[in-house]
Amino acid sequence: MFESAEIGHFIDKETYEREAPALREALLEVQFELHQQKNAAVIVLINGIEGAGKGETVKLLNEWMDPRLIEVRTFDRQTDEELAHPPAWRYWRLLPAKGRMGVFFGNWYSQMLQGRVHGLFNNAVLDQAINGAERLEKMLCDEGAIIFKFWFHLSKKQMKARLHTLKDDPLHSWRISPLDWQQSKTYEKFVRYGERAIRRTSRDYAPWNIVEGVDPYYRSLTVGKILLEGLQAALNAPPVTAHSTHEAPFIDDFSGVSLLDCLDMSLRLGKNDYEEQLITEQARLSGLMRDKRMRRHALIAVFEGNDAAGKGGSIRRVAAALDPRQYDIVPIAAPSEDERAQPYLWRFWRQIPARGKFTIFDRSWYGRVLVERVEGFCTRVDWMRAYGEINDFEEQLTNAGAIVVKFWLAIDKDTQLERFQEREQIPFKRFKITEDDWRNREKWDLYRRAVCDMVDRTSTEISPWTLVEANDKRWARVKVLRTINEALEAAFDKRDKHDKKRKK
Amino acid sequence: MFESAEIGHFIDKETYEREAPALREALLEVQFELHQQKNAAVIVLINGIEGAGKGETVKLLNEWMDPRLIEVRTFDRQTDEELAHPPAWRYWRLLPAKGRMGVFFGNWYSQMLQGRVHGLFNNAVLDQAINGAERLEKMLCDEGAIIFKFWFHLSKKQMKARLHTLKDDPLHSWRISPLDWQQSKTYEKFVRYGERAIRRTSRDYAPWNIVEGVDPYYRSLTVGKILLEGLQAALNAPPVTAHSTHEAPFIDDFSGVSLLDCLDMSLRLGKNDYEEQLITEQARLSGLMRDKRMRRHALIAVFEGNDAAGKGGSIRRVAAALDPRQYDIVPIAAPSEDERAQPYLWRFWRQIPARGKFTIFDRSWYGRVLVERVEGFCTRVDWMRAYGEINDFEEQLTNAGAIVVKFWLAIDKDTQLERFQEREQIPFKRFKITEDDWRNREKWDLYRRAVCDMVDRTSTEISPWTLVEANDKRWARVKVLRTINEALEAAFDKRDKHDKKRKK
Repeated sequence: MFESAEIGHFIDKETYEREAPALREALLEVQFELHQQKNAAVIVLINGIEGAGKGETVKLLNEWMDPRLIEVRTFDRQTDEELAHPPAWRYWRLLPAKGRMGVFFGNWYSQMLQGRVHGLFNNAVLDQAINGAERLEKMLCDEGAIIFKFWFHLSKKQMKARLHTLKDDPLHSWRISPLDWQQSKTYEKFVRYGERAIRRTSRDYAPWNIVEGVDPYYRSLTVGKILLEGLQAALNAPPVTAHSTHEAPFIDDFSGVSLLDCLDMSLRLGKNDYEEQLITEQARLSGLMRDKRMRRHALIAVFEGNDAAGKGGSIRRVAAALDPRQYDIVPIAAPSEDERAQPYLWRFWRQIPARGKFTIFDRSWYGRVLVERVEGFCTRVDWMRAYGEINDFEEQLTNAGAIVVKFWLAIDKDTQLERFQEREQIPFKRFKITEDDWRNREKWDLYRRAVCDMVDRTSTEISPWTLVEANDKRWARVKVLRTINEALEAAFDKRDKHDKKRKK
Repeated sequence: MFESAEIGHFIDKETYEREAPALREALLEVQFELHQQKNAAVIVLINGIEGAGKGETVKLLNEWMDPRLIEVRTFDRQTDEELAHPPAWRYWRLLPAKGRMGVFFGNWYSQMLQGRVHGLFNNAVLDQAINGAERLEKMLCDEGAIIFKFWFHLSKKQMKARLHTLKDDPLHSWRISPLDWQQSKTYEKFVRYGERAIRRTSRDYAPWNIVEGVDPYYRSLTVGKILLEGLQAALNAPPVTAHSTHEAPFIDDFSGVSLLDCLDMSLRLGKNDYEEQLITEQARLSGLMRDKRMRRHALIAVFEGNDAAGKGGSIRRVAAALDPRQYDIVPIAAPSEDERAQPYLWRFWRQIPARGKFTIFDRSWYGRVLVERVEGFCTRVDWMRAYGEINDFEEQLTNAGAIVVKFWLAIDKDTQLERFQEREQIPFKRFKITEDDWRNREKWDLYRRAVCDMVDRTSTEISPWTLVEANDKRWARVKVLRTINEALEAAFDKRDKHDKKRKK
């Protein structure tokens, strides 16, 4: 979920200075238009890691836009008066009116995350608070609000560096002292519970935007563009009707650098290394699957990737380590008539392995946010709600003890071309290449965008994505096997620790 | 919430035999049409009190409709296979396909209520399960399902009588033994947690229908008509689009008897009794408000009622008992411009009393489901979602220690006419009667229907409605005061018990 926000996005000063004036002008214009139309209130929630630029962003918005139409609300410790009322009262009384923008710096999320990080309550109570936030936001949107949710992020290392340089700035002593944040534990808990809240409240009508906070130019332009795009969409949309809410903004990556660009596509493995490592990992997998601790888990491996990225070959190397009774391979093609008569997750639910079993999905439920999105087989709202639905689905799997590993096998465009051509030339490989493959290739950039959104919105602590550099098939196969083994070992270890703790 | 389902609805045999054949024919027709169109799956959830006719209803549906298009699913104890999968797996694999109907006899609600009633987990975990159900149902509806949720109800007395006569019927030994149910505690817990689930999952796209289970004729016709109306609405609706779900059925009372009919409108109080009781209750209120335990509570009294039912007079009698610094009276008229620029609950949130304080609302947030519904000031979807939003709102109030009492002052049509005429004749009362009042009077039946729905859907354990027989103003005033006093005493007692328990 936070991977994309730890890759060091930045925008150089020149680009920033070129783009900022036009963006400011456009923002002012849209803000004015909103004020004229008075058909929606705008609520901007500012959350995230200490030192990631929350305060600076709030200052910036006031600077860029007309401050007479913006209300910045800082929710710090509750006042006596607030404590004498229901918790939501403090937010309600400061809601912006239609035509205006309220920036909530510190809000219901900060409050629940504080409480959980400091151990005031457990996960079930956190979930009650999360559900409360979801209901509140749903209602506000039904009443015509446009909600922007920003999570400003820094990796732990970045945060420590930032706090060090900023420790004398009074803006940064807000809510939690930076001293507290310097502790690794606080950071880790905050990120873990933050992810839980983001995962469960990123809804089509009010999705989260995770913004990397290191570079102020990148951060400022990104926030500005998300607001602009979202507000323009809302202004140009037909009036909110009974059945609809404002279409939520859902935003491109503005620095032009994505997670996929950060892969080192030159990684490869020599033949001897490959054979040695492959056999080692296969033996390890074989042992782990026979480990008696496996009886309490199911294993689910999802394979997605570019066409010709080598999914089939990797899957075969995994299967080769196992007895055929231990696993199932489920190839996913276009849905059958029976499957189309059901919710899209139905055909995957049917194939979920029982405890002790292993199922490999050769393509998966992620088709909803990849091919169905890109090809327009479902509407925008459908694939937007799918991220949340998929996170819910995978949470149910992992709650029941399943270990979910997800692979995106990435190759570059040239490698794909080579492989396509090879497939066309070798008779026994010809069945593997169709007109569809060539058509998909023309949509390379759209797929790329969809993959990045998918990883950003569904790579979670409970079920992370692994991006696999697959230009070299050997490298990819070994990485896949190793990742599965590590996931199994981590799950077994966690369970052992848990059992030990319970015995005490 | 269950009040309407405890008043002894019944339909005589003759009416039943006259209406049933046409209903069956219409149901078959709509079922066939659904099968042809194949645009929606129908899911019928059967829940409620043991002995209230759940089994009979399932049998009836199979009898009335084409059983080849109905799948009855009984979810009893989990099988080994089910236990080896995530909990929702058992439901997913038995979902009906589009064009078909699945009757889920025992379902996610039965499972969570069982768990809570038997103390397997606490309220926070129950809320997680409720939220899970909500997410599942939302997704199914987004995917085009039509969900009917039936709660078959009996009062405790009715249940005991039914179980006694039915104890040898094997259909009724399902899931929980009737013996278990015979215990008052089980009934009370089941109803309490059931209400919690109903309150939180009754959404515009999938509302609950609470059906009184005593009389089989009434029960059967009611279920049949709800299904028919809902299915017809879905079939005639435009196709489900990205932003909409099937419009949920929302159903009239079919027996022609409503809660309001059960009020004894002849109740009155003689002058002497009135004066004695009034002063007693006023003194009691005065004392309770000065009780130091009041510091931990806020008191909120909502007054709604027919025009000329005497709200103002009752409010004055309450206020007369108190020091003006102790209370606020908030009269609610049409919203101002500022108020219209905010979500409809905003203006009420602003007026919520702090702990220790008392606020009287002369009309309230219930305007949304009364005047706004009847006059068409908001859409059907708006007022349908308002029940859930209002329940959420009041839950937040009570969670923060507020005591919420709600009065509907009911008069009959003749009494209203008399009072209108009197107002027109007495100069100093003339300001109280306007053209609006006469117009509202013409919509008497629509208001009556809205009041019944309001009470059915928002009279909750945490914040019940009190219907006040107000043909006699004296009776009404004393009943209002007494109800407030009893609510305060009950809250104080509950808190005392809670404190005692904690000290142990």
